[in-house]
Amino acid sequence: MARIGNKQITREKLLDQGVAMLMEHGYHGTGLQDLLSSVQVPKGSFYNYFSSKEEFGAEVVQHYIEPFIRQLGDYLSRPELDALSAMKRYFCDLIAELERRQFKGGCLLGNLIGEIGDTNETCMDALKDAYHRYRDKLTEGLARAQAEGTVRTDQTAEVLADLVSDSWQGALLRMKVEQSVRPLQVCVSHLFDGYFKP
Amino acid sequence: MARIGNKQITREKLLDQGVAMLMEHGYHGTGLQDLLSSVQVPKGSFYNYFSSKEEFGAEVVQHYIEPFIRQLGDYLSRPELDALSAMKRYFCDLIAELERRQFKGGCLLGNLIGEIGDTNETCMDALKDAYHRYRDKLTEGLARAQAEGTVRTDQTAEVLADLVSDSWQGALLRMKVEQSVRPLQVCVSHLFDGYFKP
Repeated sequence: MARIGNKQITREKLLDQGVAMLMEHGYHGTGLQDLLSSVQVPKGSFYNYFSSKEEFGAEVVQHYIEPFIRQLGDYLSRPELDALSAMKRYFCDLIAELERRQFKGGCLLGNLIGEIGDTNETCMDALKDAYHRYRDKLTEGLARAQAEGTVRTDQTAEVLADLVSDSWQGALLRMKVEQSVRPLQVCVSHLFDGYFKP
Repeated sequence: MARIGNKQITREKLLDQGVAMLMEHGYHGTGLQDLLSSVQVPKGSFYNYFSSKEEFGAEVVQHYIEPFIRQLGDYLSRPELDALSAMKRYFCDLIAELERRQFKGGCLLGNLIGEIGDTNETCMDALKDAYHRYRDKLTEGLARAQAEGTVRTDQTAEVLADLVSDSWQGALLRMKVEQSVRPLQVCVSHLFDGYFKP
């Protein structure tokens, strides 16, 4: 039992560190030996935890997206907030966090789709799944906002969720170009206070 | 003279091949030896042409963006087209090309900003410059469309150009996720036939 517990803890550590390293160096720029030594796991023991680098990348993607879906879900389940306010508060938190991180990182999903989207089928399956699960949570929020009368209803909530996701991804890239969170603020304001108005 | 000419031709070949390889494999996934052998340049002679891989990456970025700026400029200078129609025709061409390529590649600027935006200053300077020059051409088109009364004027042309650029980048990522040009078509339609209407 103890050994299984330790193995699970190490696995989590490798996934946490994987998020950080893939975010900073990309998929091909992240070496497995560097990963292992950074969490003090013996060299050569990687395959005790993951069957391949591709499999590891796919699990890192799942590990990465969970907290975002949970955070958005938490805001959406607050009884004192209408859905539109909940989504705005969520994006406001993300913007504050990106400012604290000095505009580094962006979105691991977008970064990896750009880097290995044409070449790594295993990771791409995980990226698709993560993209859709995140989109579904946004759709849930937008559908509620539509029902509450704060978002236009002539487009489906899913179409609007895709627009949020697309604009946000592009704004994250521009954040790095401009070294500023202004593109993110403009994105949220144009959608939620502009185009999405009923 | 002949030697300088040949050197220039080889340099162009390396840049062309650089665009293709960085697009497919990313920055870290592109090996200089593979690059050289794919254009039949002797191994080890890379530094006759470029001072470093970073410098090569920066030149590839410039080499990549030029045809897009030219193509958009060509549409904008056609006397029979108003600016809005010119921009729509330009994006329509890009969509047709991406469909022909089976949704591969996307935008090299977006891919590289995602992959090496936090770590490679030389390339990032080139990416910023390319991003802004492309944005300036879009701004020119949008400003003319505003003057022609086909685009809203309560936002500056530059702000609208950034929105086009952001949404398009995100739509390119989703193109790869969905394996479809539908996200690109939706992006163009929501902006030019929706949000941008006067």
